Amino acid sequence: MTSLDLNAPVEELTRALVDITSVSGGEAPLADAVEAVLRTLPHLEVVRDGDAVMARTALGRKARVIVAGHLDTVPVADNLPSHWADAGATLVGRGTVDMKGGVAVALSLAAQVTAPCRDVTWIFYDHEEVEEVKNGLGRLARRHPQWLKADFAVLGEPTSARIEGGCNGTIRVDVHIPGVAAHSARSWKGVNAIHAAAPVLEALSNYEAQTVTVDGLDYREGLNAVGVRGGIAGNVVPDACVVTVNYRFSPATSTDDAIAHVARVVGESGVGEHRLEVTDRADACRPGLDAALAQSFVDAVARTGAAAPRAKVGWTDVARFGALGIPAVNYGPGDPELAHADDERVSISEIRDCRAGLHAWLTDEEDAG
Amino acid sequence: MTSLDLNAPVEELTRALVDITSVSGGEAPLADAVEAVLRTLPHLEVVRDGDAVMARTALGRKARVIVAGHLDTVPVADNLPSHWADAGATLVGRGTVDMKGGVAVALSLAAQVTAPCRDVTWIFYDHEEVEEVKNGLGRLARRHPQWLKADFAVLGEPTSARIEGGCNGTIRVDVHIPGVAAHSARSWKGVNAIHAAAPVLEALSNYEAQTVTVDGLDYREGLNAVGVRGGIAGNVVPDACVVTVNYRFSPATSTDDAIAHVARVVGESGVGEHRLEVTDRADACRPGLDAALAQSFVDAVARTGAAAPRAKVGWTDVARFGALGIPAVNYGPGDPELAHADDERVSISEIRDCRAGLHAWLTDEEDAG
Repeated sequence: MTSLDLNAPVEELTRALVDITSVSGGEAPLADAVEAVLRTLPHLEVVRDGDAVMARTALGRKARVIVAGHLDTVPVADNLPSHWADAGATLVGRGTVDMKGGVAVALSLAAQVTAPCRDVTWIFYDHEEVEEVKNGLGRLARRHPQWLKADFAVLGEPTSARIEGGCNGTIRVDVHIPGVAAHSARSWKGVNAIHAAAPVLEALSNYEAQTVTVDGLDYREGLNAVGVRGGIAGNVVPDACVVTVNYRFSPATSTDDAIAHVARVVGESGVGEHRLEVTDRADACRPGLDAALAQSFVDAVARTGAAAPRAKVGWTDVARFGALGIPAVNYGPGDPELAHADDERVSISEIRDCRAGLHAWLTDEEDAG
Repeated sequence: MTSLDLNAPVEELTRALVDITSVSGGEAPLADAVEAVLRTLPHLEVVRDGDAVMARTALGRKARVIVAGHLDTVPVADNLPSHWADAGATLVGRGTVDMKGGVAVALSLAAQVTAPCRDVTWIFYDHEEVEEVKNGLGRLARRHPQWLKADFAVLGEPTSARIEGGCNGTIRVDVHIPGVAAHSARSWKGVNAIHAAAPVLEALSNYEAQTVTVDGLDYREGLNAVGVRGGIAGNVVPDACVVTVNYRFSPATSTDDAIAHVARVVGESGVGEHRLEVTDRADACRPGLDAALAQSFVDAVARTGAAAPRAKVGWTDVARFGALGIPAVNYGPGDPELAHADDERVSISEIRDCRAGLHAWLTDEEDAG
């Protein structure tokens, strides 16, 4: 088993983590190494569940925060082992962005900040890059609810070392529109389901998406047809048309309310008979940046020179914290556009900035409880 | 080789033809039998091309008419050999409707009307039930243009023993509507091609199809979306949407004008950038019922008690005659709704009616030229 040195410079630790291949389902060697090194630290209580590892301080602070990251990566694309580039300013390879830089920051601080000013629960989990049912963070929430109690959470997903708060929710709804089939040479004997879909597309086309401010961040929403299908054959008036609608909604809206909203937009479009089928639903997450605990984090990150916090419009695992009532933000090194890319690469300065931002927040004596 | 008795009652001849299996591509045994028996008739000149057989009188009449039918059937569905039903009033089996009843009528008259009042070219052809490029009538038109000169044509497709004149044309046009892909969480960075299709569907939905009177028959048209497809994934704003439009147009409209009409309807819908792709085109055919030659046919058929002539709205091989400048009608025994059905069955009285109608027309001495 590879032994990890948590006292190494954080970029060296990142490289060591990257070079332990951990494609989803193959996290065991990395989880073993993480568990082993954390168990050497007397200030942490450690638990292992599958290929997830959690560690926490128990200092009796007023507040408890979670710092989390996933251990797995998407498949390797001839981009491991890693290598340095730009005279050591950049680390290149699978997982450098998504998200072993963030994991290295967390492990480094878990070891070196032995008495943080707020209690910390460190979470390293498996199966983030694959189907939802396998997600390690979801499993931990089900099996270890007592470990997942906190006042705020930071997820180390790549954000170019700035805070991206919470996330929009997302639902997909299939709008099934019926018709009556007929030979297209005698089309008056049928009812064309594709024609009947016109008002739905018209309503989506005219829809003006809102931008909703939640806890000080602006969440831009979106309501889109992401699919349409209809037609049996070139000579048949179609008896069915399905429009797949994707709604991205702000943390001010519950998922149930989002579904009701889509039903209302479709229903008020003037479309006739139709049936809605919800095929996917994922809650939004509040950023919680209006709370003092979060504001101290914002201040600490600002001192690293980071850009101002902004809303996360894509869905991430922060929503799993949101579902537990824990406001959460994304904060990690790396350009998210390079996640999953074959030429995935991270700037060392962003890794150091994130470590500095979190370190300042966890060691701010004025804040200690 | 089965020997055909063209002097048998026409329903017996129908049965004999039905029981020589002739699924498309396997017409040779039937074509052999047809060729052999026609060559025994001294009043006819006969030519064979592949599995098509043509025979014609050369009496120097003022007018020449074509009577045509295809020899092939769709695949057998455990419905051969044929059998009688309804105490001999019905013949059941593959090909009874589409269209060996019509072929039997033609063969019976080819043999027994040795001196028709107008010259007749009898055509029996292959590969009607399969892809257009194999169509035997099309091949004959290309290879034997001198045989395909006539003033009027009767195609023995099933019409329940009434005249269905000419046929509507049909085109299929794919309307390609572009967009710009984007992650649906940042939909404002894209242009939704499905939304952009809304005006096209709206225009099709609002379109009022015309009924156009041609040579005394009313052709009801139709303009329909028969397919729509768009969407890449559940989280992507789609960069393409394709609406497949089928236009059924009367014989008053050329195919080129029909394409221009679809382009105009789409262009005036308010849709933005788009591209049209014609994927299928088939000419309409005039019924020619305003001419004296045709009128005498209408009168002869009327005397059998048939319903009044009406327009054929579906496309048939009559259009191949139309393309040669020959007006044409469909006239044959059998309910077209039963064509291709597993329980395909024809009424004997309709076979006899069609034989009587054609016989009267071909032997009307007042008409003889």
